[in-house]
Amino acid sequence: MNNAEKNLFGTVAIIGIGLIGSSIARGIKKYNIANKVVGYAKTLKTRKKAMDLGYMDQVFDSASDAIQNANLVILCIPVGANRDIMIEISDNLSEGTILTDVGSVKAEVIKQLHDIVPDTVSFVPAHPIAGTEFSGPESGFAELFDNKWCVLTPYEKSRKQDIEKVKNFWERLGMNVDEMSPEYHDLVLAITSHIPHLIAYNIVGTATNLTEITRKEVTKYAAGGFRDFTRIASSDPIMWRDIFLNNQEAVLEMLDKFSDDLSSLREAIKKKDGQELQKYFTKTRDIRRKILQQESK
Amino acid sequence: MNNAEKNLFGTVAIIGIGLIGSSIARGIKKYNIANKVVGYAKTLKTRKKAMDLGYMDQVFDSASDAIQNANLVILCIPVGANRDIMIEISDNLSEGTILTDVGSVKAEVIKQLHDIVPDTVSFVPAHPIAGTEFSGPESGFAELFDNKWCVLTPYEKSRKQDIEKVKNFWERLGMNVDEMSPEYHDLVLAITSHIPHLIAYNIVGTATNLTEITRKEVTKYAAGGFRDFTRIASSDPIMWRDIFLNNQEAVLEMLDKFSDDLSSLREAIKKKDGQELQKYFTKTRDIRRKILQQESK
Repeated sequence: MNNAEKNLFGTVAIIGIGLIGSSIARGIKKYNIANKVVGYAKTLKTRKKAMDLGYMDQVFDSASDAIQNANLVILCIPVGANRDIMIEISDNLSEGTILTDVGSVKAEVIKQLHDIVPDTVSFVPAHPIAGTEFSGPESGFAELFDNKWCVLTPYEKSRKQDIEKVKNFWERLGMNVDEMSPEYHDLVLAITSHIPHLIAYNIVGTATNLTEITRKEVTKYAAGGFRDFTRIASSDPIMWRDIFLNNQEAVLEMLDKFSDDLSSLREAIKKKDGQELQKYFTKTRDIRRKILQQESK
Repeated sequence: MNNAEKNLFGTVAIIGIGLIGSSIARGIKKYNIANKVVGYAKTLKTRKKAMDLGYMDQVFDSASDAIQNANLVILCIPVGANRDIMIEISDNLSEGTILTDVGSVKAEVIKQLHDIVPDTVSFVPAHPIAGTEFSGPESGFAELFDNKWCVLTPYEKSRKQDIEKVKNFWERLGMNVDEMSPEYHDLVLAITSHIPHLIAYNIVGTATNLTEITRKEVTKYAAGGFRDFTRIASSDPIMWRDIFLNNQEAVLEMLDKFSDDLSSLREAIKKKDGQELQKYFTKTRDIRRKILQQESK
């Protein structure tokens, strides 16, 4: 039996059964990554849905119960909810358990959890860069992670052999895995994910607030570009609130760069500087080509 | 023979055979909208491609030759190129010809063409709101316009029966057709299309300029939102240069609203005002729902 066929873990406990949590559970079943997958969800509605969908072996109404006997615990909740849950469960974590998470912010999460994670537990912070605009246990699918990148940001509480196990876990779910420092991760994600979401939310908000144009016309003529932004801007509000609150520094740094560049483009439009506009709009094509090249590898 | 089966026009001349021009030509053939479709393209390469692709009856290296005997002439070039082409062809337009265009800006285009359009010609400005990030005659497809909106902005040089004919033309290509004033169109498009493109170009530019993060990492971890922006920001640079130069006033007005809203969101992040962020991010979901509702009708 080779490594790809062997179960990596006995029991995996998923804390929070939304888009990501339920996709992980489905993936564990599809690729036989663990013997058992259990979960915790705050609301009865989510717990019922998760059980009905049939990819969890057991769903608990208490996080402490869910993690009993788990070899791998994955926090799949908005990053702002991590600390409270960890305070609740930390006493019940078995020795040798591996703890990981899926948050889009790493430095602040580590800072908040560090003193609560028992010394007998190995914490390997992770961020699978995958998602859709949909939320809830019914939105997940096993292939969500396929050929996407997962970033691990190991630190002093991550045991070497456990980093390797978490890496294998995400690879078995179809991901490519990288390692970097939490701070660098947060800077990269600020520009590649957090600012794009912020400006998508912002333009949709601006359009909603207009008094010169009716809401109906904004939705009717959305095909010219706006529609794509509304998709991004319909992502989970609480998850995104927590990301901005917890990656404040990097987000503000990148936002200021974005605003400076926007002022320059505004100036070029004001001065009717066609050459400058064309130069800017040509340069940005190159990065698209590189992304498509990378994907076709 | 009912109206849907009868050819609407004898000959249609398409000036500029890019994504839109070639999609129109394909649609005319697919839906039997005219007896003949001819075209003009500036470069030999485009002319050869268009002929090889097989949906044009004839392709000319002179716009004046292309429009000879045309009953409908459609300008499918960047809006900044319209005036020069019209100066070149206006003497050769036959009496009764209908002139239309596909530009994403209307007031300025009308202003620029008004004195050149002969009194014997009916000018019905139009804007089919449809497109992709791809350019060139090979990128077009007949179904591009399917179930999208086309806005007509008739003015004093648009004869009543010709407005009706142009409306029918776009309907036969699969579009829903609306009428509004050129100025109102430009305001609606500024927020639903021009500003979204501007900020997409801008964020991709910002990411390209960063020195803290390598270009490679920006492309590698693009799946978190950035990727969608690079698609929009790979649209044709000359077309978009011309749009911003020619819809300057409405674009600056909407851009300033966008920037004001972004300052408020920045402030909320800086103050760690989670309630305000959540409220903003929840509000924007509603407009997405309305767009999807409208599409499913």
